[in-house]
Amino acid sequence: MAYILSVFAVRNLLVLSLALNVSLILRVLLLHDSQDGSFNGFFFAEQKEEALATKITRLSSSVAPSPSLTMAQGDEDRVINLDQSFHGGRRQETGVNDAVCHGDPTMYESYWQKKGDETTVVIPGWQFMSYFSDATRLCWFLEPEFAKQIVRLHNVVGNAVTENRHIVVGTGSTQLFQAALYALSPCAEAEPISVVSAAPYYSSYPLITDCLKSRLYKWAGDARSFSKNGPYIELVTSPNNPDGFARRSVVNGSEGILIHDLAYYWPQYTPISSPANYDLMLFTVSKSTGHAGMRIGWALVKDEDVARKMTKYIEINTIGVSKDSQVRAAKVLKVISDNSEGPNEGDSFFEFSYRVMAKRWKQLREAVQQSGLFSVSDFPPQLCMFLNRVFEPQPAFAWIKCEGDIEDCESFLRGKKILTRGGKHFGVSP
Amino acid sequence: MAYILSVFAVRNLLVLSLALNVSLILRVLLLHDSQDGSFNGFFFAEQKEEALATKITRLSSSVAPSPSLTMAQGDEDRVINLDQSFHGGRRQETGVNDAVCHGDPTMYESYWQKKGDETTVVIPGWQFMSYFSDATRLCWFLEPEFAKQIVRLHNVVGNAVTENRHIVVGTGSTQLFQAALYALSPCAEAEPISVVSAAPYYSSYPLITDCLKSRLYKWAGDARSFSKNGPYIELVTSPNNPDGFARRSVVNGSEGILIHDLAYYWPQYTPISSPANYDLMLFTVSKSTGHAGMRIGWALVKDEDVARKMTKYIEINTIGVSKDSQVRAAKVLKVISDNSEGPNEGDSFFEFSYRVMAKRWKQLREAVQQSGLFSVSDFPPQLCMFLNRVFEPQPAFAWIKCEGDIEDCESFLRGKKILTRGGKHFGVSP
Repeated sequence: MAYILSVFAVRNLLVLSLALNVSLILRVLLLHDSQDGSFNGFFFAEQKEEALATKITRLSSSVAPSPSLTMAQGDEDRVINLDQSFHGGRRQETGVNDAVCHGDPTMYESYWQKKGDETTVVIPGWQFMSYFSDATRLCWFLEPEFAKQIVRLHNVVGNAVTENRHIVVGTGSTQLFQAALYALSPCAEAEPISVVSAAPYYSSYPLITDCLKSRLYKWAGDARSFSKNGPYIELVTSPNNPDGFARRSVVNGSEGILIHDLAYYWPQYTPISSPANYDLMLFTVSKSTGHAGMRIGWALVKDEDVARKMTKYIEINTIGVSKDSQVRAAKVLKVISDNSEGPNEGDSFFEFSYRVMAKRWKQLREAVQQSGLFSVSDFPPQLCMFLNRVFEPQPAFAWIKCEGDIEDCESFLRGKKILTRGGKHFGVSP
Repeated sequence: MAYILSVFAVRNLLVLSLALNVSLILRVLLLHDSQDGSFNGFFFAEQKEEALATKITRLSSSVAPSPSLTMAQGDEDRVINLDQSFHGGRRQETGVNDAVCHGDPTMYESYWQKKGDETTVVIPGWQFMSYFSDATRLCWFLEPEFAKQIVRLHNVVGNAVTENRHIVVGTGSTQLFQAALYALSPCAEAEPISVVSAAPYYSSYPLITDCLKSRLYKWAGDARSFSKNGPYIELVTSPNNPDGFARRSVVNGSEGILIHDLAYYWPQYTPISSPANYDLMLFTVSKSTGHAGMRIGWALVKDEDVARKMTKYIEINTIGVSKDSQVRAAKVLKVISDNSEGPNEGDSFFEFSYRVMAKRWKQLREAVQQSGLFSVSDFPPQLCMFLNRVFEPQPAFAWIKCEGDIEDCESFLRGKKILTRGGKHFGVSP
């Protein structure tokens, strides 16, 4: 459910040298990955300042070459955007400074383009007019075909147990996270239930949790330093955003309720060791298939009462979820399952997306090693039961440490026209 | 933004006689409207108890004849559902008893079916993958073509001023209502701002407002009895849900902020007298075109800062709005504008939907008059500038008073297998 970022704690090198090298590394990465100078995906957007916002759109929504992004001219007025959170083309001035949308999974576009008509949906004007998808279901706005394809894909990939689970569809997993908070908060408590996650945590968790200053729940920070008695909700993001590590709950309390955010538990990001088997698991198409624009996520929920309350929240919040996007998501999931099982297995989506991520991580590690300016984590290799291959996790985001002595690296890099998110957004040092 | 209901205050007749007559009236209406016994739309669903939920789905999502709904057999085990709020086929037991989804606008399906391919959308798998629609816009997740068609339709119909307005798209107008509360609540206040609306008000307003027990805002009931000093938010629904009357703000305070819910300010429901010209206006496709399953609404907002904060809320709540549904909504709006302006004006959507509503209201008034059991409001006729015709408002819901002496009509009618929403949900007597 979350994205890019970089913690920079530079301590050892000269500022001038660092600035030069940072630019060089990023530009080497940009050129490596894209012969025509364009770059799609979670990590990078680069543009001339005067047309920054427009070009982000082009980078994000099209795989067409962007000639303005070649390195031959005008380097001095370029901006490298690793944060990619924009509000009408500029930072907003409303007193709300944090952004939820970081990183755009458009690096999978070329795969879907190659698939051609296979994933095209045709929707006549008179279809899906009703609020209801299937009133016999607990989640009455869940399209039956989408539900079927969710179960099938989890069974094909082997990344989650679907037996004896209720499926709740949401407008992205962000809405489902809020639905889970609503469903899991005790109604009768005098004070809000604490919501915690081990730092570094997804930078939007605090923002989303405290957005409406609810009396039902409140953000209580780093799970590792949480020691209050009584009930609490712990968010376990695994693989974790931002650092990519597999996670388990860390609070040692008897009254904890867990939400497992498994947005990145797919074979392009991490080896699938066994089917996840938790009470409440969140998934989203934006990270699994790259279709962020659909705004579709799903929850697998063991307890019927919790699933019913989550459904209720989504009814109150948005009276259900777009049918059109559910129908489209069903088709995309079906094609992934078909191609993963069929004779063209080598051409499967997860093979493609695995290669994209592997290539990027190779380039990133090479550049980091050559520079001596940064460090990135090493992950232990593991057998992926789905790809039948041993590999190291290759997260959808780069959690980078600067080896130098600069205190606030976000500001420092901003001065070099490189936009990032500093560690403080994730509950650690800047 | 809201739907069906009936206030029954029966005082004069024998219970036995009433029960018979209520059934008769409703059945007359059902048979009148549908030769094959099926009935689509805001008002009615009828089904055998043992398969109630399943049949609601069929009624709601298909225009195909439903043979089980003829009156020839099994009348005794039928349920007439005027409430149409279901959760997994039965009332839920989670302690959350109110429902948001009442009435399903499927009575326009036949029009869109007749239009055939005109409103069909084709979406290849690689399109609309990005979070972003247009990063240069304040509302960066608003599809440009949808924005264009919103402005065009308002200009064609003449029901709202669009000049100098920001458009914010939402997952239905329900989400936009919450975005408006978030945007209009003062940040620094010690206590939540009061949210009021004149009774009878849309029954979901209190539920949505107090859902998360926010410290930013709280439901404060009937606007007519509100007399607190200081800032407040007044919801003005016009035409009003549930009673169909045109509305203006009623609180006489100097620090009021208004939200105008204009979901029903379209020519099939009420004469369009002039373009609405308010600071914050909400619209939705579910009531204007009948496409509830898309979950698409829009706000026209004068103040840039308010529009920016509303956009922020939707970013935090769902990271934008389904692109697929926006693209589909754009097409539907375009066809409505094209047909309203072109040579086939008589075949326009608003002519069709006006006739549907006119026919239903004629039947309803006839049945009510014949029975002597109920009364419905009379509305003053007015010139509609768009249809160029004088007519009385013909709301999308029936606000019916029972002329008798029963205290709780919802319970009474439930005993007769007729499901309704009593007046107390709307801030008036049962």
